Amino acid sequence: MEFSVVREDGRARFGILKGTHGVTETPCFMPVGTLGAVKGVTWEDIKRMGYHLVLSNVYHLYLRPGLEIIKEAGGIHKFTGWNELILTDSGGFQVFSLGKLMKLTEEGVFFKSHIDGSEHFFTPEFVVKFEEEIGVDIGMVLDECTPYPATYEYAEHSMERTVRWAERSINSRTTDKTALFGIVQGGVYDDLRLRCVEKLVKLPFDGYAIGGLSVGEPKEEMYRITKLVAPQLPKDKPRYLMGVGTPLDILEAVESGVDMFDCVMPTRNARNGTLFTSYGKVNIKKAKYKNDFTPLDPECDCYTCKNFTKAYLRHLYVTGNVNSVILNTIHNLHFYEKLMEKIRDSIKEEKFSEFKVDFLRKFKGDKSQISR
Amino acid sequence: MEFSVVREDGRARFGILKGTHGVTETPCFMPVGTLGAVKGVTWEDIKRMGYHLVLSNVYHLYLRPGLEIIKEAGGIHKFTGWNELILTDSGGFQVFSLGKLMKLTEEGVFFKSHIDGSEHFFTPEFVVKFEEEIGVDIGMVLDECTPYPATYEYAEHSMERTVRWAERSINSRTTDKTALFGIVQGGVYDDLRLRCVEKLVKLPFDGYAIGGLSVGEPKEEMYRITKLVAPQLPKDKPRYLMGVGTPLDILEAVESGVDMFDCVMPTRNARNGTLFTSYGKVNIKKAKYKNDFTPLDPECDCYTCKNFTKAYLRHLYVTGNVNSVILNTIHNLHFYEKLMEKIRDSIKEEKFSEFKVDFLRKFKGDKSQISR
Repeated sequence: MEFSVVREDGRARFGILKGTHGVTETPCFMPVGTLGAVKGVTWEDIKRMGYHLVLSNVYHLYLRPGLEIIKEAGGIHKFTGWNELILTDSGGFQVFSLGKLMKLTEEGVFFKSHIDGSEHFFTPEFVVKFEEEIGVDIGMVLDECTPYPATYEYAEHSMERTVRWAERSINSRTTDKTALFGIVQGGVYDDLRLRCVEKLVKLPFDGYAIGGLSVGEPKEEMYRITKLVAPQLPKDKPRYLMGVGTPLDILEAVESGVDMFDCVMPTRNARNGTLFTSYGKVNIKKAKYKNDFTPLDPECDCYTCKNFTKAYLRHLYVTGNVNSVILNTIHNLHFYEKLMEKIRDSIKEEKFSEFKVDFLRKFKGDKSQISR
Repeated sequence: MEFSVVREDGRARFGILKGTHGVTETPCFMPVGTLGAVKGVTWEDIKRMGYHLVLSNVYHLYLRPGLEIIKEAGGIHKFTGWNELILTDSGGFQVFSLGKLMKLTEEGVFFKSHIDGSEHFFTPEFVVKFEEEIGVDIGMVLDECTPYPATYEYAEHSMERTVRWAERSINSRTTDKTALFGIVQGGVYDDLRLRCVEKLVKLPFDGYAIGGLSVGEPKEEMYRITKLVAPQLPKDKPRYLMGVGTPLDILEAVESGVDMFDCVMPTRNARNGTLFTSYGKVNIKKAKYKNDFTPLDPECDCYTCKNFTKAYLRHLYVTGNVNSVILNTIHNLHFYEKLMEKIRDSIKEEKFSEFKVDFLRKFKGDKSQISR
């Protein structure tokens, strides 16, 4: 993997990331396709929107279809039909949130499948092996995702284990075709976060993620930790804020120097009828849209906005039609990619701060939540 | 509406149907979009497959979103975003099958909504008014769909009411922008069917449908009635076999001189994981496909077959991923349109019988069910 920062504007960075299966500009947002498919849209749709990097997940792929089938298919790209960049989260977060965590030991983590209750064991080495064998472009190490709230002692203990697991992960690598990213933990404790960074940057990771945020902590804590941690990470490596977030969250984090994001929000919200527009969020099920024959977002040029009205989108939603999922997802993911494109353009023109204020003024309808 | 038979091969006909919003060649299959959307695919997908005519439904559109909203939108084309031909079934079948039928009178039919139990009343005149006001290209008259089995007396009575309703429908027309089709009823009784035809062809309908089939009767009955009725219908008007069917059903009916078809089969089966291929039906959930890395149908050039394997389609199905619906529906509807295209081509070349035998030999894996 190669990464270079092409332009800086304050701490915001415009960069280019080259992996084994493609290239993406940064800052970038990764659509979430945990099971090897981004729900509601085809890869053709994803490419048309301008995405070159999607996220999948070791926990989910390990359970279904499983390592053997993906290997037999010739790797995750061949199996899924997506032929550009793929990053996999290690599954650490899923083991803690979805599966029934059975036992956490120094060696690894025992868990029960959320599907059939079967018992499994992940070690840092196994996760790296899995990621290398299915051939992802970027793999995340197995970490212990500190919940919120957590005591200082708990956060310290889990951060230190995350560092030891990071070392084991690095030591178990067998190929550079799959880049490996370390994950910074430490809860909302500044000194723990900084100690974690200090230790991880000594390891030859290809990039660094900020984990353990967007897990229920107040937004201010997320922004504070991001602002603290991101600038401490190596300038020549990509920085990834995991599981984030809203347009505001992304803008705040880009301002702190973050390059990569993923979040279920655009896809999950699409399925729930919550749509992102230039003028804020729209809850399409509201009765007031039943005879609103204007496009969802007049400034959007996605297939949904070019061809359909809010009244039709509401009709599809309230009748439970699967096309509601399709059209809403096309729009929300398009909206996110356009946001990232505008962010990148504004950094190139050294106008990121202005863009951020302008975007949020329109999106929020007021400036009360906007920091500069 | 204009219709002309361009070529005949035995009783099979290749024709061209021009409506207010477009043109389609016949024999044609209409994807079913009861609520103004074909589940699982966008209009863009539908057009790419080669469809120019889709089916919707008065019963469903009347309940949701309702006449006022569609009118306010500027008609059904503007409301749904589909800008080519639309045919609406009258809702007669749905009143009998979906809604709770309350009372059938000479005047019309009282029914309860299957959604909220609210009470409604359809007359033949109202259905024509609805179809004209939402601006469909082809409207079907309200008929009394005779169930199977039905006594001779019942079938006779309901056929005669259907004829009287057909007269009232014709008399209530106010525009020729919406073509109107009559519907032949009469159960599985030859003389009732022929009497119905005799009466309906005296009315100036733009086309004629064979209704009351595909409602549970044995296949042989369906084929027999179709073979009996179709040739009695005016040669210069399109003939539509409602709710049919399998590839075999369609081939049999085309051989009898039918021009138009609709059926939920390709879309509903797609959602249930049953896929049509040149070599027969595939139940994609079967375990044997879990490591089958070949395309669903090697002879198919749809997006699904060009880009994905059976193993991936099975993975999407068993994990309940909405993309299973999308990719399966794209394939099944593509398969149906290609079948119709090959049927049309074979009629043009006067090789329909050969095509039918060849197709079915491959599709069924044997010739036992093939008639010539």
